[in-house]
Amino acid sequence: MNILETLNWRYAAKRMNGQRVPSDKIERILEAIRLAPSSMGLQPYAVLLIEDEEMKKQIRAVANNQPQIEESSHLLVFAAWDNITPDHIEDFISHTASERNMPVENLAAFKNTLLGIAEHNTQEQNFNWAARQAYIAFGVGLVAAATEKVDATPMEGFDAAALDKLLGLPAKGLRSVTLMPLGYRDAENDWLVKLPKVRRQKEKFVLEA
Amino acid sequence: MNILETLNWRYAAKRMNGQRVPSDKIERILEAIRLAPSSMGLQPYAVLLIEDEEMKKQIRAVANNQPQIEESSHLLVFAAWDNITPDHIEDFISHTASERNMPVENLAAFKNTLLGIAEHNTQEQNFNWAARQAYIAFGVGLVAAATEKVDATPMEGFDAAALDKLLGLPAKGLRSVTLMPLGYRDAENDWLVKLPKVRRQKEKFVLEA
Repeated sequence: MNILETLNWRYAAKRMNGQRVPSDKIERILEAIRLAPSSMGLQPYAVLLIEDEEMKKQIRAVANNQPQIEESSHLLVFAAWDNITPDHIEDFISHTASERNMPVENLAAFKNTLLGIAEHNTQEQNFNWAARQAYIAFGVGLVAAATEKVDATPMEGFDAAALDKLLGLPAKGLRSVTLMPLGYRDAENDWLVKLPKVRRQKEKFVLEA
Repeated sequence: MNILETLNWRYAAKRMNGQRVPSDKIERILEAIRLAPSSMGLQPYAVLLIEDEEMKKQIRAVANNQPQIEESSHLLVFAAWDNITPDHIEDFISHTASERNMPVENLAAFKNTLLGIAEHNTQEQNFNWAARQAYIAFGVGLVAAATEKVDATPMEGFDAAALDKLLGLPAKGLRSVTLMPLGYRDAENDWLVKLPKVRRQKEKFVLEA
């Protein structure tokens, strides 16, 4: 199945059937998300993996009661760094040096660039920038799920502050930005599966410049 | 090639060799971007397709002189709506009704939800939300390019105000958010192609909750 067939197959499932997604598929979806590109390679976000039924129930309660949260087998919460701190940059630079087998001093200029950006911006600007990077990974994750024939519903409709509190994210320096329940569509009970996908016409979407 | 191989193959090419990407590949990459999901399906962004050499030269000058802008054969500019307006929502609702062959009145509640969100937020909040949606499509586009074995460099390093002016985006109600040159890596002259990909360790990236 090529990527266009994959993207036409996927849709935002409004109901899921509770069937469990096998672990190997979850692992590959998570690995795709981990491999997603981000600005400077910083990956200023994390993914929380939630399988616990009681936790999913509590999350549903702060997410407009959307049933897929409990009908999925695995719920991913994409959470962006609430700020870009010198510690983050230090960790990133030392990990990069280690992976590339080079002295950390070789990355001094790169490190200073990152420190400069992070210090120049306000916390909210840093968070918003981190959130945008998380959305790239979110897009990659949605494609990855579809290549596994796993349904994934992109969700922004939740009370982020309440969810952050539930998951103890402030102590981790994280703020939730999107949810991705993973499961299987309940085609019989989902009103959306029967409707054609709507996208803006190509001539209005791609502008020649 | 599965998606993990695809994601491991791709990287942010720092130099490209000028070879032209065939039109059918460009068309499929653009179609994947058009099919990307967005909140409510609104697609609050557009993609500008740039092939003109003189324009690429001018863009390079406001984009930290990054050579891939001229060494690519096609440059995509992702531009988000600078606001979410009643006209945008009107167009979206009438297009949806038409595609789904239903009276526009059936979408009245959905339309009011969208109008409520757009009116409740400031212009800057609407733009930031639109930009996040564009980043989902950007992530999908990066994967799509890699499935075609086309290199694509994600770029945020440019003067957005200067680029917007160059491309006449304010008059279109758009603001540039990211660039994606499409082309082929110049493996001999690209320092990055020789280095291993660095990603945060899985145990630090995926948090069990």
